[in-house]
Amino acid sequence: MKYIYFFGAGKAEGTSAMRELLGGKGAGLAEMTRIGLPVPGGFTITTHACAYYLKNKKYPRELHAAVAQNLARLEKLTRRKLGDAENPLLVSVRSGAARSMPGMMETVLNLGLNDKSVEGLAGATRNERFAYDAYRRFVQMYSTVVNALPKDDLEEKLRALKARLKVKDDTQVTAHGWKQLIAEYKAYYKQKKGTEFPQDPQEQLWGAIGAVFQSWRGEKAQKYRVAEKIPDDAGTAASVVQMVFGNTGEDSGTGVCFTRDPSTGEKVFFGEFLVNAQGEDVVAGIRTPLQLTEMKRVMPHSYKQLEQVRTKLEKHFRDMQDMEFTVENGKLYMLQTRNGKRSPSATFRIAVDMVGEKLITVEEALERVKPEDIERLFYPVIDPKVQPSELRHRLFVTGNNAVPGAAVGKAIFSAHEAEDWAARGEKVVLVRHETSPEDVGGMYVAQGILTATGGKTSHAAVVARGWGKCCIVGAENLEIDLAAKTMKANGRTVREGEWITLDGSDGSVYTGEVGLIRPEAPQAYATLLKWADKVRRLRVRTNADTPQDARLAREMGAEGIGLCRTEHMFFKDFEFPERSAERQLAIQEMILARNAEDRKKALNKLQPFQRRDFIGIFEAMDGFPVTIRLIDPPLHEFIPHEPKKQAALAAKIGIPVEEVAQRVSQLYESNPMLGHRGCRLSITYPEILDMQVGAMIEAAVDCKQRGVQVSPEIMHPLVMDKKELQILSQRTREVADRIIRDAKVKLEYIVGTMIELPRAALLAREIAEVAEFFSFGTNDLTQTTMGLSRDDAGRFLPVYIDERQAGIFQFDPFQTLDIAGVGILIEWAIVSGRKARPKLKVGICGEHGGDGPSVKFCHRVGMDYVSASPFRVAIARLAAAQAVIEERKIGTRGGKNARRQK
Amino acid sequence: MKYIYFFGAGKAEGTSAMRELLGGKGAGLAEMTRIGLPVPGGFTITTHACAYYLKNKKYPRELHAAVAQNLARLEKLTRRKLGDAENPLLVSVRSGAARSMPGMMETVLNLGLNDKSVEGLAGATRNERFAYDAYRRFVQMYSTVVNALPKDDLEEKLRALKARLKVKDDTQVTAHGWKQLIAEYKAYYKQKKGTEFPQDPQEQLWGAIGAVFQSWRGEKAQKYRVAEKIPDDAGTAASVVQMVFGNTGEDSGTGVCFTRDPSTGEKVFFGEFLVNAQGEDVVAGIRTPLQLTEMKRVMPHSYKQLEQVRTKLEKHFRDMQDMEFTVENGKLYMLQTRNGKRSPSATFRIAVDMVGEKLITVEEALERVKPEDIERLFYPVIDPKVQPSELRHRLFVTGNNAVPGAAVGKAIFSAHEAEDWAARGEKVVLVRHETSPEDVGGMYVAQGILTATGGKTSHAAVVARGWGKCCIVGAENLEIDLAAKTMKANGRTVREGEWITLDGSDGSVYTGEVGLIRPEAPQAYATLLKWADKVRRLRVRTNADTPQDARLAREMGAEGIGLCRTEHMFFKDFEFPERSAERQLAIQEMILARNAEDRKKALNKLQPFQRRDFIGIFEAMDGFPVTIRLIDPPLHEFIPHEPKKQAALAAKIGIPVEEVAQRVSQLYESNPMLGHRGCRLSITYPEILDMQVGAMIEAAVDCKQRGVQVSPEIMHPLVMDKKELQILSQRTREVADRIIRDAKVKLEYIVGTMIELPRAALLAREIAEVAEFFSFGTNDLTQTTMGLSRDDAGRFLPVYIDERQAGIFQFDPFQTLDIAGVGILIEWAIVSGRKARPKLKVGICGEHGGDGPSVKFCHRVGMDYVSASPFRVAIARLAAAQAVIEERKIGTRGGKNARRQK
Repeated sequence: MKYIYFFGAGKAEGTSAMRELLGGKGAGLAEMTRIGLPVPGGFTITTHACAYYLKNKKYPRELHAAVAQNLARLEKLTRRKLGDAENPLLVSVRSGAARSMPGMMETVLNLGLNDKSVEGLAGATRNERFAYDAYRRFVQMYSTVVNALPKDDLEEKLRALKARLKVKDDTQVTAHGWKQLIAEYKAYYKQKKGTEFPQDPQEQLWGAIGAVFQSWRGEKAQKYRVAEKIPDDAGTAASVVQMVFGNTGEDSGTGVCFTRDPSTGEKVFFGEFLVNAQGEDVVAGIRTPLQLTEMKRVMPHSYKQLEQVRTKLEKHFRDMQDMEFTVENGKLYMLQTRNGKRSPSATFRIAVDMVGEKLITVEEALERVKPEDIERLFYPVIDPKVQPSELRHRLFVTGNNAVPGAAVGKAIFSAHEAEDWAARGEKVVLVRHETSPEDVGGMYVAQGILTATGGKTSHAAVVARGWGKCCIVGAENLEIDLAAKTMKANGRTVREGEWITLDGSDGSVYTGEVGLIRPEAPQAYATLLKWADKVRRLRVRTNADTPQDARLAREMGAEGIGLCRTEHMFFKDFEFPERSAERQLAIQEMILARNAEDRKKALNKLQPFQRRDFIGIFEAMDGFPVTIRLIDPPLHEFIPHEPKKQAALAAKIGIPVEEVAQRVSQLYESNPMLGHRGCRLSITYPEILDMQVGAMIEAAVDCKQRGVQVSPEIMHPLVMDKKELQILSQRTREVADRIIRDAKVKLEYIVGTMIELPRAALLAREIAEVAEFFSFGTNDLTQTTMGLSRDDAGRFLPVYIDERQAGIFQFDPFQTLDIAGVGILIEWAIVSGRKARPKLKVGICGEHGGDGPSVKFCHRVGMDYVSASPFRVAIARLAAAQAVIEERKIGTRGGKNARRQK
Repeated sequence: MKYIYFFGAGKAEGTSAMRELLGGKGAGLAEMTRIGLPVPGGFTITTHACAYYLKNKKYPRELHAAVAQNLARLEKLTRRKLGDAENPLLVSVRSGAARSMPGMMETVLNLGLNDKSVEGLAGATRNERFAYDAYRRFVQMYSTVVNALPKDDLEEKLRALKARLKVKDDTQVTAHGWKQLIAEYKAYYKQKKGTEFPQDPQEQLWGAIGAVFQSWRGEKAQKYRVAEKIPDDAGTAASVVQMVFGNTGEDSGTGVCFTRDPSTGEKVFFGEFLVNAQGEDVVAGIRTPLQLTEMKRVMPHSYKQLEQVRTKLEKHFRDMQDMEFTVENGKLYMLQTRNGKRSPSATFRIAVDMVGEKLITVEEALERVKPEDIERLFYPVIDPKVQPSELRHRLFVTGNNAVPGAAVGKAIFSAHEAEDWAARGEKVVLVRHETSPEDVGGMYVAQGILTATGGKTSHAAVVARGWGKCCIVGAENLEIDLAAKTMKANGRTVREGEWITLDGSDGSVYTGEVGLIRPEAPQAYATLLKWADKVRRLRVRTNADTPQDARLAREMGAEGIGLCRTEHMFFKDFEFPERSAERQLAIQEMILARNAEDRKKALNKLQPFQRRDFIGIFEAMDGFPVTIRLIDPPLHEFIPHEPKKQAALAAKIGIPVEEVAQRVSQLYESNPMLGHRGCRLSITYPEILDMQVGAMIEAAVDCKQRGVQVSPEIMHPLVMDKKELQILSQRTREVADRIIRDAKVKLEYIVGTMIELPRAALLAREIAEVAEFFSFGTNDLTQTTMGLSRDDAGRFLPVYIDERQAGIFQFDPFQTLDIAGVGILIEWAIVSGRKARPKLKVGICGEHGGDGPSVKFCHRVGMDYVSASPFRVAIARLAAAQAVIEERKIGTRGGKNARRQK
């Protein structure tokens, strides 16, 4: 097995395709060498060697010879020798995994220096101070990274030295000063380790390689992998690279740059740069770097060279690059390149611009954008008009930005209280030391979540991320006093009920109500989605219950409504909110009716309201289909459970309060999710069906007569049997056809069913003999197939998803469809449904309709459309296009393997 | 199409195989004619003609000619003519469907009489009184049956006549008297119908045929079909048969008889008989009939003939027969034969005896017994030692016997009260005007149910039948006063809380507590089940949680335990009931523990109890496998919800009561069925698994060391994923293997899973890679597959099952497995599980394991065993044998069509 890949002098054994083997950094160095960019020589030890080392606690046998051989090759190339007393070769040993884990693993620089070679370096560079500075940096780094001596102790010695020397900056320390510090470091090393600081460069090299490999197992790296779902057994590569120095004088320097602006995406050369400095100085933030434009002035030649590199790299990699470089005595060296991270907005702009520049194809542009980019594009953010001075003034504490977005609400310190406040219509932010499964109720109602402890993989972070809810965790300076219901930080106190604002993009917590805005979509977003529309096969509809939502969804590009929930209309009048109470009373009268006759009377009061709502929705969706679902929730949800409210209701209707209470207790169910709801209500109370179908068909007739194009699709929920749907469908048609006949219009409508119970999926072939369409209700189908109540799963599902705990599922099945399990039923239902009715229309209206991987699955199994909430319509449009592109690559569609592709 | 089948003079066009076409009666008459028994001539109009008539509201065109032709043939055979003035032919027109519907449809006798032919009959029989009696009977019957005149009015005229004549019995009325009555009837007919009573025998005949056909649609017939699940479109046949008369003198008579005693099954000739009487007199109960043995004395010749018929018929039909006969002037006529209804106990005895007599094979004997027969065999009954006089004295009211068995309890008049009383440990009988879905809770806890209204298909009857719970409905004399909480009947009053006893076998309600017994099994029962054991392939285990249940089940023939629920052990100490509280406290401490350490401490207290229980169970099942399921219910079920009890618990444990209350509210779930239960508890609290596995393996080791043969099968409930089971299985093996290693015994055990979620069934192949056995938990699998909460479905499931309402399902899916839906998942899981593990052991432990049709399904899909509650073990043994017999007939086994066979 080949464990090492050499690069140098324009040739490289590796390529950019070898990320898995060489890590991002190693692959980048090899590729840059290949295409003729100035890269210091070196070699990369593969991730396989690391995996072997971690597994077997020793190196592969062949590795020793290979390192010796490649080191000799590097020495030959550079005409220097490691540890040489005259002109020594210095190397860095750098970590680098296949998937970027910035700052999570270790690196050792200036390796090869010892008491002799430091003199050689001083002689060769004619700069003793530089040489001893390099040596002390190496001793310091080696001691902490390879031998785990406490960083603070060494830093303290440096501080003490500077104090003795009465200087402020490191740059003011002379060669003599560094020699003193080196002696102190070495003494400290001997005291702690019992041996001398290693002078043998070979020992140094193997120590550094081992430390880099070990750092894969470091605590922070492990946590990062859990959060980013990076496999634990991949391992890191280690690149041994000739050192170049940006701190050898005024014609040296170092910097990082992006080929385009990573926040706006604009095609400008963007970066920072320090003269006479090492890379670590940029990172440490000791000196303020210059803008890259300044480099043009101070180092015009190197800048020009860098400009050429920029162009060449973008052309070569066909993506925006994030690069590190060093200029040593006027000579430019590229140390790293990788695809640059960018803001959601920049993601769109760069993708669209690059198509314009013919760098990439439309299909590639569509693949460059991830569904999360769309989501993040529209997260609320702090209004940019808010003055920075105001923000500085309001800054209360900072924590880790676990979930982006921003949130404003009143600080509440217990989950139960949060639920109570929210029930009163208050906006709350839940503040906890840390959250536990018992807090999910309060977390759910909160605008945002703030915790004092815990990292990005804590319970709070995992749960909030699932909901896309702004969350800041581990605000360590926060002192919460649960008894007093206050929190303190940096000398200020926030009491229960006082407003605070969270900025999840950077982890800042502000006192008071800071203005938020929902960002405007950039031009490129619209362009890219238009391209997506041309590519995709799946239609994208929306879940909307009101004319307002319907209009919003149309703006988002929805091509119809896939789910209009009629029961929300029982609660609220969106046009005339003051009439909401009237609606509520009518539905309550219906439920409390003593017989079918009274039930009909109450329903007759409700019908005009529903008709009006339907007219608004049909108008908003002029020309597009509208799927209307009949009443779904159990009736008890419509009647108050508190004695006071029951008394008020009884008084209004004019019946004894006991009757209300008795009805509530009759309607009690131990598992309402599996109870008397969905079409079971229409089976037992067909009057409800009559009213609802009447309202929607009358509305459709009214619209049709006024020239609005309507295509109602009447949907029965929770069907589990063909005969059940037959009964419902027949009654639906009787009611509808009578109205249409009486109105003498030509109106077409179809009648179908949700598939949201395993039995319905299993018997899809029979059911499709009656149903004209299927709409998968994947929320309930997931609940029943997995035996998992969505409302209750918060108690244990995080344990199931967290890889450090059980790690049974990769995703929350309520966010991303459980393709392995629920997916089987969906595929089965579509295939068997279409056996009975080849042109069966099939869609999805669960929340998975707005989730990228789930939408792609819907495409693969041959659905006709997905339906998503208005703000997720764009995600669905993009994912649907990406599904087509993936399919083209694989060259198959649908069929038996639909569930296997991800 | 042939609409009529003739029989007479030893020849018949029909056979006994033509039940569907000729009805039971028509087929029986044809077959008896064929085999040379004395049967009056006649012809049967088919059920197809009836179905045509009912559908098209007219007769098939060919029918008129066919009736004329067959009537002519009958006239030729009898040498008499219908309506003849000299020697008229009289016929009966009798209904008779394929499936017996006794008393539900109409019959017209003595047809062919009119003002002229009655004189002919008088002359021919030389008995004017007899002739006019026959005529008045005909006029009365024709008026009510064919023309729907009110029966009571005609009866009233008869009463008035007898009063005028000052006689008591009909037999005392003279020919003159009958003539007067006939004149009155005819006048009344004309007054009501506006036309004369029909004198034309053809008109009479067609009127009668139409009335018989129409009676299929009569209200009582329709209701009966719903209750008995007889298809609505089958229709009845109509047999036109020459009249013979048992009332022509002392050498005439009529009777009904059984070839064996229908209550004991003993091989004795059994029946009742009346001299000089018509069949309707037997039914009407006007005269007390004689025992058949008396007939030997009074009509030795006819009796001998009848004895020969008895032997011939049993040999021919190879089953016990129920026959009707008439002796006319010393000549025996057979009017009907059919397989006789018999008591459960007789069913066994007859089947076994007939094998001994080589009349039938063992396989046939096994098929003769239905699972319900076993169940009914063991229903509690009134202790036969109770004196009839006592019962007469206690008789309070009678109703319809909707569900057999007997029940004793305190009368309670509301479902809620019933629940409260039952919660206090009282035995209650729920008494209601009628029950509604809201009453199911109270019905469930009641020993029996009594309603004042409603028939055998009322809500109460349907629900109670489902539970096999004694139920009497429609006790019309009952006056219930809900406000006073009393009921009155026949001058007596029963108050709330007073004891009553229901006898569901005959519908009697008694005051007070009457002694009940569970009947002893007859010898034949044991014989037949031994035969079943030889035939069946499926093993039969039991669901048992205590040593007591385990021993009982062994007596019932169980071959191991298929489901031992460990959580019941948390509540109750069956050996030392006074230690139950100790157990409860330990589990409560476990749940209230603040951390894993305290949880372990509490569990340690529980472990010795569980170990002791397991030892008892293993001993009872020496040599047989025992499947033990780990904790399944959600934890909240173990902590009290009432504040008072919470306070007591808090005091006992020594924690603040708020902590108990808080924990209860933390544990609250909106859908506990889909919540934190089953193996999810072991995933989140592995300490519980450790304790339970420890207890069962320590118990097994202990038994093994004492020479008891143990085969523990450790079962994880509610598994939905392979990885989940992997985690559980690994931990189980760690705990178990350590104990076995330490004990230095050789103990084999296996680890498997329940398949009770659709996802587990869908992913059975993967799961079988880890599971060593599958046990289908069909209760929960039904709940999740159908989205149907068993506890809540009482509100609408009756509507789904009732054919007069939605009629969506044929059976309650919680009683008889939903083969069409849930069955798909089961078959899929077995087939795919065995792909991964060909020798995968598969069983069922839901309550369907004791249901006949479900057990047969389990056989067809290739399960290894079923597990049933102890009292249903015998049902499973029988059904398993019947499944083999059915399979032999069809000549296939398992495979793709398993779900189609019923």
